[in-house]
Amino acid sequence: MALDPDKLLAYKIPDKQQAYTTRDTILYALGLGLGADPMDKDQLRYVYEDGLKALPTMAVVLGYHGFWIKDAGLGIDWKKILHGEQGIEVHKPIPTSGTMIGKLKITSVIDKGPKTGALMYSAREVVDQATGEKIATLTQTTVMRGDGGFGGASGPVPEPHAIPERAPDMAIDLKTLPQAALIYRLSGDYNPLHADPEVAKVGGFARPILHGLCTYGVVGHALLKAAAGYDTSRFKRMAGRFTSPVYPGETIRTEIWREGGERVSFRASVVERGLVVINNGLAVIG
Amino acid sequence: MALDPDKLLAYKIPDKQQAYTTRDTILYALGLGLGADPMDKDQLRYVYEDGLKALPTMAVVLGYHGFWIKDAGLGIDWKKILHGEQGIEVHKPIPTSGTMIGKLKITSVIDKGPKTGALMYSAREVVDQATGEKIATLTQTTVMRGDGGFGGASGPVPEPHAIPERAPDMAIDLKTLPQAALIYRLSGDYNPLHADPEVAKVGGFARPILHGLCTYGVVGHALLKAAAGYDTSRFKRMAGRFTSPVYPGETIRTEIWREGGERVSFRASVVERGLVVINNGLAVIG
Repeated sequence: MALDPDKLLAYKIPDKQQAYTTRDTILYALGLGLGADPMDKDQLRYVYEDGLKALPTMAVVLGYHGFWIKDAGLGIDWKKILHGEQGIEVHKPIPTSGTMIGKLKITSVIDKGPKTGALMYSAREVVDQATGEKIATLTQTTVMRGDGGFGGASGPVPEPHAIPERAPDMAIDLKTLPQAALIYRLSGDYNPLHADPEVAKVGGFARPILHGLCTYGVVGHALLKAAAGYDTSRFKRMAGRFTSPVYPGETIRTEIWREGGERVSFRASVVERGLVVINNGLAVIG
Repeated sequence: MALDPDKLLAYKIPDKQQAYTTRDTILYALGLGLGADPMDKDQLRYVYEDGLKALPTMAVVLGYHGFWIKDAGLGIDWKKILHGEQGIEVHKPIPTSGTMIGKLKITSVIDKGPKTGALMYSAREVVDQATGEKIATLTQTTVMRGDGGFGGASGPVPEPHAIPERAPDMAIDLKTLPQAALIYRLSGDYNPLHADPEVAKVGGFARPILHGLCTYGVVGHALLKAAAGYDTSRFKRMAGRFTSPVYPGETIRTEIWREGGERVSFRASVVERGLVVINNGLAVIG
């Protein structure tokens, strides 16, 4: 069955209401590996309720709709779906507890042909129910590998951000825990690919892989640490392209280039395998 | 103000009702360090919802009354309190989710004099609200170092279980995570001593210490692994005496002696400092 892009674009995804507590905020940060040095006061403020702050990347787990595409009856070959790109724009500091509303919209569907698949661009606004304020806007590119060739336009798609050729200005190594995926999944993405060795095997992996958004959060932590001095209010935007999965326990190296003004380029790789895992990264740090 | 043992014995502690989910059950096990090898299927069943089981020692965080002694207006010098001994008897497999009622009773108060302090023996029954069944009985000895010398009897107190002189039959090393206390405290004991370097310093420690009951759970895990083949239904009883705190990140070695029948003696120490942390241990493994 060929993908019907109009049906997909018109598909109404109900708003997602999600209450969360300071315990959830701490658990999110622990899933990214913060707190590995219990004497590090910069990290402590994300994992301890006294003076607690929420990490900016936590927006990705708030008002989260889950794997709606599987259940939508749209005939999409969901087993072949990949998370292609992720962007975050933070409008307000994320409250450490509260109720968020996720409002998800599909913004375009692009046909890259039967080999590459279709691309779905979506945007989610995260709105604080208590104040009505928009906290964050999340943009996502979903690669639907099994759904290309439906006869749609192959563009326009935004050009990926170009990383400088020169050596990075900084490189930050952050080790993930062997049980990182098991902790991270308690923030809401219970896909068994990240926990069950059998499911991972069927998916073509030697063992369960880390959530792409956990890798993303670790890279966000590196940016916050190295480029924003752990000041969440300076963290405005972050966007990048997923290129390869990480196995829990591996070390994620984030290379950072200062581009002048508030712009920061970044790229992340796994130290143990020398493989790029997030590329074409652009952040805005005030 | 001298301790009034009759007032303490008569003190009514309201029953504690506590609802918990499979997520809480998984989080408890992650706090003890299970899942460190994501390919270990024996451990996976305690940290993954498919076929999930609750660890027997999880009883200690169910129907937990918190630090009631501080708030009870009994004039106890709560800053000088230590957790002396802990026993668990498991009557039924612990459900992976549900609502438990904790029923706490003070069973005796002993006067060991002004130097050692007073001992309070208490027992908590953990009852499944849905079925009315008793799931576990927890016994605890609290050492009130600042409240001895009130003129009470210095006994009777049970003799600590004697560990054999011979070499242990088995020794199991389990490494804790540097962030173990930060994860474990999300199971309900938010004492800042386990998270805040300043509070730890005031308490006389170089850095935040691991919860005694987290150490206890790690030792319970060692017993479950080495003496019960990870079969929770074989785990009937466990009791031991706390002798020294553990720092998160240290390795806990559990030495085990088979005593014939279902009786197993155990002792736990920190490998890095060669210090005994739980002594006089006796378990019953069916």
